[in-house]
Amino acid sequence: MQIGLIGLGKMGYNLALNFQRHGHEVVAFDINKGAMDRIQQDGVRTAPTISELVAALPRRRVIWIMVPAGHVVDVILANLKNHLQPDDILIDGGNSHYKDSITRSKELEKQGALLLDCGTSGGVKGALEGVCTMIGGRRDAFEFCEPLFKSISVENGYLYCGKSGSGHFAKMVHNGIEYGMMQSIAEGLEVLHKHDNNINLAEVARVWNHGSVVRSWLMELTQHALEKDTNLESIKGVMHSSGEGKWTVEAALYLGVPTPVITMSLLMRYRSQQQDTFAGKVVAALRNEFGGHEVEKSKD
Amino acid sequence: MQIGLIGLGKMGYNLALNFQRHGHEVVAFDINKGAMDRIQQDGVRTAPTISELVAALPRRRVIWIMVPAGHVVDVILANLKNHLQPDDILIDGGNSHYKDSITRSKELEKQGALLLDCGTSGGVKGALEGVCTMIGGRRDAFEFCEPLFKSISVENGYLYCGKSGSGHFAKMVHNGIEYGMMQSIAEGLEVLHKHDNNINLAEVARVWNHGSVVRSWLMELTQHALEKDTNLESIKGVMHSSGEGKWTVEAALYLGVPTPVITMSLLMRYRSQQQDTFAGKVVAALRNEFGGHEVEKSKD
Repeated sequence: MQIGLIGLGKMGYNLALNFQRHGHEVVAFDINKGAMDRIQQDGVRTAPTISELVAALPRRRVIWIMVPAGHVVDVILANLKNHLQPDDILIDGGNSHYKDSITRSKELEKQGALLLDCGTSGGVKGALEGVCTMIGGRRDAFEFCEPLFKSISVENGYLYCGKSGSGHFAKMVHNGIEYGMMQSIAEGLEVLHKHDNNINLAEVARVWNHGSVVRSWLMELTQHALEKDTNLESIKGVMHSSGEGKWTVEAALYLGVPTPVITMSLLMRYRSQQQDTFAGKVVAALRNEFGGHEVEKSKD
Repeated sequence: MQIGLIGLGKMGYNLALNFQRHGHEVVAFDINKGAMDRIQQDGVRTAPTISELVAALPRRRVIWIMVPAGHVVDVILANLKNHLQPDDILIDGGNSHYKDSITRSKELEKQGALLLDCGTSGGVKGALEGVCTMIGGRRDAFEFCEPLFKSISVENGYLYCGKSGSGHFAKMVHNGIEYGMMQSIAEGLEVLHKHDNNINLAEVARVWNHGSVVRSWLMELTQHALEKDTNLESIKGVMHSSGEGKWTVEAALYLGVPTPVITMSLLMRYRSQQQDTFAGKVVAALRNEFGGHEVEKSKD
């Protein structure tokens, strides 16, 4: 199908290539001209403005928005609003707060346009080779776009979660779980490291990835990071985050669900911004692994 | 090679079959006559007593002990002691405390016998089809037994960790990480369930196993458990444990390593024994999944 794509960051750029590889005709836009030039060289058509992107698409339009959560999404929606026609479908593939997605969906529906909230997991590499998508919004809009979700996701890797907001809610919780899993791996490795600082942690992660109960993609990324830097000495234990863990804890507090592990994972992230820890190095390394996020160097 | 096996519980029984399938000649012993009869029917030789088991093995003897951690190991070692000869090798494949393994190793060495401490992961199914093994003890003893470890482990699934105790230490930490990963998955699922108790959690776990960052064996077991029982209604949220998580926290306290996630995971297990939680159901189900541990039924 034909699809508009707004946002050519790490995820969006690779998604564009993923769309293209599956035979979709992409028209892309980004405020970063360099990204626009690069994607053109990769054979993807671009539009110089959002209104021209909309004009270049046939109806029923489908436009995928892949930008950082928050204000930027609202700016883009405000830009799009007057150009859309009834039944056009916007897909917010970023990590927007599910409540924002519900609000935005209601606003758009006043003009007849539809918003699908799509949690997109798998990191930068997944964006290129196959993602995991969790989709919320009107079922008919989902069904119209289902061939798109199916083609860019790994096999069995997409799910219609239900009404508006449910896709981003599921992705938010996924990320909350991810926080806890990462922190658990990290704490264990710090115990091992402090117990015997000569132990080859990359070898330990390697053996754990072969037949153990904790084998996982995160453990594979751990192994990969440790193989590049045995004791992660080049990376500071400063753990950044981009909102979903905090929102998971907020949702848990609202619902009255005890989530000490996800909560402590979040708090350890805050803590790490004030003092360095080895566990922090592991998580920073992991964030670098799966999302290409910058790590802070431990040496000046 | 020829190997003695003491202990035909869930893990030991399947290990015996795993040994046998890889061409090792097993002589097995268990105090449970039923298990002895069954394993004979599976073509495994048995010995009616520990002393006869020792007598049936050629030197340099290798005897794998697969029994619950604690007193039972000491009873077996006391039984074996007078029958062993210098350079005989005992392998404790269970979840013994690493300090006990160090102490036992020193005791045995007085008579010239050697103890390898071997952490064995992969659950009951892994014991049959291929485990993940972490081995500590004298390197020459490890090297003598390496063909054995290699054959019963999955490819790349065994690691010589170093001196006495290091195998059980690595396995202890593995289990500590496992506690945290399981609790994180469980808390996330409780948030999802409380937010929308109509959501099909098995489908969510399924999609997360395809391309997401949290894809893992534990998530696969989660999916499997949820597919059998959508909201785990048949299982009470009582989370038992068998020591390794507590020991990981004890080691962390001794080393001064902050491990809030692993610690909270442990404490939530204790907590669950006083009041039911949905997260407890998930973890109880997971323990049932990978280790065949009994779950308590929620209906009388």
